[in-house]
Order: sequence, then structure tokens, then C-alpha cells
Amino acid sequence: MTQAFTTLEIPTRGKGLYEFTRATTQWLAAQALTTGLLTVFVQHTSASLVIQENADPDVRRDLDAFFARLVPENDPLYIHTMEGPDDMPAHVRSALTQTQLSIPVVNRRMTLGTWQGLYLFEHRSSSHRRNVVLHLIGE
Amino acid sequence: MTQAFTTLEIPTRGKGLYEFTRATTQWLAAQALTTGLLTVFVQHTSASLVIQENADPDVRRDLDAFFARLVPENDPLYIHTMEGPDDMPAHVRSALTQTQLSIPVVNRRMTLGTWQGLYLFEHRSSSHRRNVVLHLIGE
Amino acid sequence: MTQAFTTLEIPTRGKGLYEFTRATTQWLAAQALTTGLLTVFVQHTSASLVIQENADPDVRRDLDAFFARLVPENDPLYIHTMEGPDDMPAHVRSALTQTQLSIPVVNRRMTLGTWQGLYLFEHRSSSHRRNVVLHLIGE
Repeated sequence: MTQAFTTLEIPTRGKGLYEFTRATTQWLAAQALTTGLLTVFVQHTSASLVIQENADPDVRRDLDAFFARLVPENDPLYIHTMEGPDDMPAHVRSALTQTQLSIPVVNRRMTLGTWQGLYLFEHRSSSHRRNVVLHLIGE
Repeated sequence: MTQAFTTLEIPTRGKGLYEFTRATTQWLAAQALTTGLLTVFVQHTSASLVIQENADPDVRRDLDAFFARLVPENDPLYIHTMEGPDDMPAHVRSALTQTQLSIPVVNRRMTLGTWQGLYLFEHRSSSHRRNVVLHLIGE
Repeated sequence: MTQAFTTLEIPTRGKGLYEFTRATTQWLAAQALTTGLLTVFVQHTSASLVIQENADPDVRRDLDAFFARLVPENDPLYIHTMEGPDDMPAHVRSALTQTQLSIPVVNRRMTLGTWQGLYLFEHRSSSHRRNVVLHLIGE
């Protein structure tokens, strides 16, 4: 029984979903551990994580459009506006999705369903470099 | 320290919450491990997981009704419509809830609160068979 | 490889976010384990967990205000009203956020980003004492 860690740096160019399934799969394939639990943790409060369909790109476009409408910018509700019109909506969108995901691993592969992919959900308008910690525990 | 895995197959008959606390409890009771972390992972992007009140069934009915109103079908916002009017709402509802849950285990029992139950949240209208992976790590 | 458990009791005085980062940090610092996975699990269905910005308190105020508007009390949609006007909204707000969070631990510290704090999100109007289970597995 042992553990492994790494940090992925994911560059983003505005709101939307950025897949990192492949980077995660490649890291897992290189580990000594074959069976265990992978935890994915995003170190930000204005970007989050979702597992979504990786087939039709329109799904990701529609998902982002839904969140943009549900959590609008320039909402008079907000007091916290000093970091820009997209900042408070980014915190709300993060709270509505995930900061962390854990996925069982068998034979060095995540037990994802056929159509599932791992996505960083960027909620800010400008470009960022986002850090995602990967932690694997198993044997 | 060791691990155990299984997959539960949960049949669904349309939108709503389907409890699988008992199947999980029974599987845990049969394991050699007594203490650890249970991870529940749903292998779909149009069904999800929630821990909710298991007392009054009206809570589950109201929860589903809330999500049906928040994420309506036939919303002109959506481009991804080829898989039916319930498909894109299903992806959004999944993103708003959980793909994975982890629960500490002591004496072969989950540390759930008195009123907590595990539910598969089905977001499609037709019948499905949903796979939920259970992974236990501990000693 | 070993494990550790504790339960934090968090007193709340109405809706809003209650930080418990410090209590968690102090517990971790006192453990024999230095590296592993921390799981935080709330034993309620009318309070939940979020990781949010710990800098400007207005962020937490705005977050609570957003959820209060998104999930209003006295909504004619609800059948489950016997436990008070804030009860069913509390269940919905819990489903929209997290019951559980897992965070990698290195050198007895959570791998949180600079601005991330752990919060209990209270969804009921009256005072409560909320139980949060902490489970650490590692070595």
C-alpha cells in the first residue's frame, strides 16, 4: 500500500470546460500502484471540476450556457464586485459544481463509464493557469 | 490494509430518486475490512448521486420537482437536442449534483447521520439500468 | 499505513457559511500520519459543505444570498412543508452543494490553494449543532 502525487497545470482561455482525462490517464499508467482511489482536487474557488459527456462538444457548450444564464454577471444581488463582474458568479458556479472528485482505479485505469471525461470548469473570462492536484492511494 | 470492489446495477423507471442504502450496507457487512473509506461512483453523465433525507418521501418528490423546474426540457438555450428533450437537462442536473460520494466506514457501517440515505438520481424519462461502482479501502 | 477519525461539532446560528479550516488544520497537525487523504463528511441533509474563498467575507454573504433567491422559502412547488418553510429549501440547497469533500494531505497539511477555506453551509434558520466526521487514511 502506497501513495503517489502530482499536480497538473491546466491553461484556460475563458469560461468553459477543458478536458484533462488524457493527462490523468497517462499519469496513472506510469504509476507503480495498480489498484486504488484517485482523488482530483482543484486549488481554486473560481474554477471547478465536473465529469461530463465526452462525445458531443455541444454538451459542454450548452452546460456553460446554462450556468451563464443561471448565475448572471452584473447581478444587483452582489456586494463583492471589486474583482470584476465575473468573479462572484465564478464563486457561485464553483459552489454549484465540484472542487474535488474521487474515482476508483483498477489495472491503472479509472473506472469511468464509456462516455465520461474529466473536465476543469473555468468560470473566469480571462486566461488562467489552473492547478489540479492528483492523489493516488492503493497498492 | 486492503481494498474491495463491486458494482451495483440499479434499475430506474424515469426521473427521480432511487435509494440504494440497503444494498450498500449489506455489501459492507460482508467485507473483511472493518474500517476505511467507501467511495460510490456512478458511471453515467445523465444520472447522479445525492445523500438525502430518507424519512418523508415527499422530500424526494419535491427535490425532483425543483430540478425539473430549474432545468426545464425544450429550453431554447440548448443546441444538443438530438438525444431527446430530457438529455441535455440530464447532463445539467448531473453537473449540479454528484458523480461521486465518499463516506467513512467504522465497524463495517457507513458513518451516515440518522436521516441520511444514498440515492441514485435518475435524470432521464425512460427506463435504464445504472451502474454504481463501490470501492472500499481500509483495514 | 493507518487511519484516524474524529468528529467536529460546529454550532450554527442561522443560514450562512461557517469556517472550520482551523479546527481541521489543528487536528491534522496532531496526527501521526503525515501523508494521505482527508475526507470531511457532514451527517445532515439540511447543512452541507463547500470550499470557498476565505479572503473577502462579502463572498460568503453573496453566496448565501444567491442560494436564498435560487431556492426560495414558501415556494408553492413544495409538498413537504410540515417541518417549516426553510426545511425543503435546506434539502435542495444541500443537494446543490456537497455532503462530502476529500482533500489530499502532505506534511500533515491539506493541499488547499492560497484562498481556499473549508465551510459548513447552514441552510436552516434556527440554531443547530452540526456534526462533521473527519477521516484520514495514509501513512
